[in-house]
Amino acid sequence: MKTHTLLMPLDMHLHLRDSVMLENVAPLTAYSFSGAIIMPNLVPPVTTLEDVRNYKKSIMETVPNDYFEPYMTLFYKNYDKAFLESVANEITAIKLYPAGITTNSEGGVSSFDIEEMRPTLQAMSDMEIPLCVHGETDGFVMDREAEFMTIYELLATNFPKLKIIMEHITTKEAVEMLDKHENLYATITVHHLLLTLDDVVGGMMMPHNFCKPIAKRPEDLNALLTTALEAHPKVMFGSDSAPHPRSKKESCGCAAGVFSAPIALQLLCEIFEQYDKLDNLQSFISDNAQSIYGICPEFKEVVLEKRPFIIPEDYSGVVPLYAGNEIAWAIESIE
Amino acid sequence: MKTHTLLMPLDMHLHLRDSVMLENVAPLTAYSFSGAIIMPNLVPPVTTLEDVRNYKKSIMETVPNDYFEPYMTLFYKNYDKAFLESVANEITAIKLYPAGITTNSEGGVSSFDIEEMRPTLQAMSDMEIPLCVHGETDGFVMDREAEFMTIYELLATNFPKLKIIMEHITTKEAVEMLDKHENLYATITVHHLLLTLDDVVGGMMMPHNFCKPIAKRPEDLNALLTTALEAHPKVMFGSDSAPHPRSKKESCGCAAGVFSAPIALQLLCEIFEQYDKLDNLQSFISDNAQSIYGICPEFKEVVLEKRPFIIPEDYSGVVPLYAGNEIAWAIESIE
Repeated sequence: MKTHTLLMPLDMHLHLRDSVMLENVAPLTAYSFSGAIIMPNLVPPVTTLEDVRNYKKSIMETVPNDYFEPYMTLFYKNYDKAFLESVANEITAIKLYPAGITTNSEGGVSSFDIEEMRPTLQAMSDMEIPLCVHGETDGFVMDREAEFMTIYELLATNFPKLKIIMEHITTKEAVEMLDKHENLYATITVHHLLLTLDDVVGGMMMPHNFCKPIAKRPEDLNALLTTALEAHPKVMFGSDSAPHPRSKKESCGCAAGVFSAPIALQLLCEIFEQYDKLDNLQSFISDNAQSIYGICPEFKEVVLEKRPFIIPEDYSGVVPLYAGNEIAWAIESIE
Repeated sequence: MKTHTLLMPLDMHLHLRDSVMLENVAPLTAYSFSGAIIMPNLVPPVTTLEDVRNYKKSIMETVPNDYFEPYMTLFYKNYDKAFLESVANEITAIKLYPAGITTNSEGGVSSFDIEEMRPTLQAMSDMEIPLCVHGETDGFVMDREAEFMTIYELLATNFPKLKIIMEHITTKEAVEMLDKHENLYATITVHHLLLTLDDVVGGMMMPHNFCKPIAKRPEDLNALLTTALEAHPKVMFGSDSAPHPRSKKESCGCAAGVFSAPIALQLLCEIFEQYDKLDNLQSFISDNAQSIYGICPEFKEVVLEKRPFIIPEDYSGVVPLYAGNEIAWAIESIE
């Protein structure tokens, strides 16, 4: 039977939430990934050294027997240099949210006044702390990411040594930015390599495919696929896996977020094999991220096998992407 | 208190369904409208003279005490001339659905082969039976209507005397078609004068704003508003009010359709007043339709009053547009 081996898979954008949800979902990622960048948008958000340490401790308590590194992040505010120096060793990046743009982002940045942000961003640049950005304006839903490109350009040109990660990109405009500015990088989710707006509202309304940024047009999907499949050296896998209880997803006014963590590797094998690009998956799933972030995850070897696998209907009440569907790859063993 | 009077309001695109749903919703329309074009997409669809007569009888039984005219339609198939002659006096129009494009449209047209359709469409043209069209391709959800414009052009140029109604238009492309072909007309819903895709998936996911065609971009909304507010003589109000039980709208995989019939006149007053165009509402709500269809509805006078009105949370289990919201106009009296 055909197999494919991935070494030290990394999820460079992951939501683990806290309390019971954390206990339910963290082990699923720790099982198959060597490490993950942990998003800080808890309620309240992660903004102090103590928050970082406590959150990391909570995460590690849920996965005592796995080799798994939670790469911690702070929720972006205009921090001073002394604070950043005190926390630098405990974090891998700082995550910036425009205020109110997605789940638990109310305390984010409400105006991109570069001079107001300069002390923090220059200090991050000097200390080589990457800036992860949720890049959406508050404009029309299909234009929010494309409109944000001017802010990426502003950030990239004002802080040319700051590594800026365009998180969960969904448009051809964002893909094109990768080759325009040396210090812009990107993560891509697995669901944005599979879905367009058609899968959200093209037939019936599909809450489990509803996320922010929303899945875009077919030509955007093609641009994302092209850059992921070639494992563009500035692109990394980041699931943006976002667990919500089934009841919150299937009710009126459902929350945004796709839960993909436990099935991401299997789906990526299917996608990369389909386009005859399996050889590039290692770079997309780990090597690029190691280079960009300068991280050295502990050894983990995941062997996937090409055999029918039916995605579970839910994991502890959280419905995954493609729940109940059969896909072509399954995890065979992990060492 | 400010009032506004509408004479013989007409809803030129209405879904009444059948059985219990019909009993629940037909009286709501019959209360405030003089008449309505009744959509034929029942299960099974309305395709025979007997179907038309039975459906009309069922409708009239639900509204025994109102002056209300259900203008009946047939579900488009390639009918022969003899059949059309036998049914012509009992119908006002024939409604064409591309196969599978919306609720209960499985038996619709699967390819627009003009030569195959010519006998039917030419007979309709000769007999002056208007053709109402759900104009969407099976392409990407935001492009479906714009892509259908080539089919409208094909129909309009091949049958220049056939009145073709572009139903529930949602795009600037469709608005622009009105001035390109003499025999193209359009209906516009009230929800497409209020919503964009932002109201469906821009914040949380809003199933009660989910319909087909889906609400489009801000520039599309502006084009629709402009043509409705000026009461373009080729444009009529058609609610496309589509009742679904709350349970079907608020579950995973929710059905498409916005229920607006009982609050359409109030909302239209609010919109037209907001743009200082109340004087044009009479043409949009009735006069244009009378001219285009050559119909003479029975007298009905609806007086609306400018006072706060809270839209009910539901009507017999069917949730209306803007349920629970306060709007500025209410129905004061009907004679």
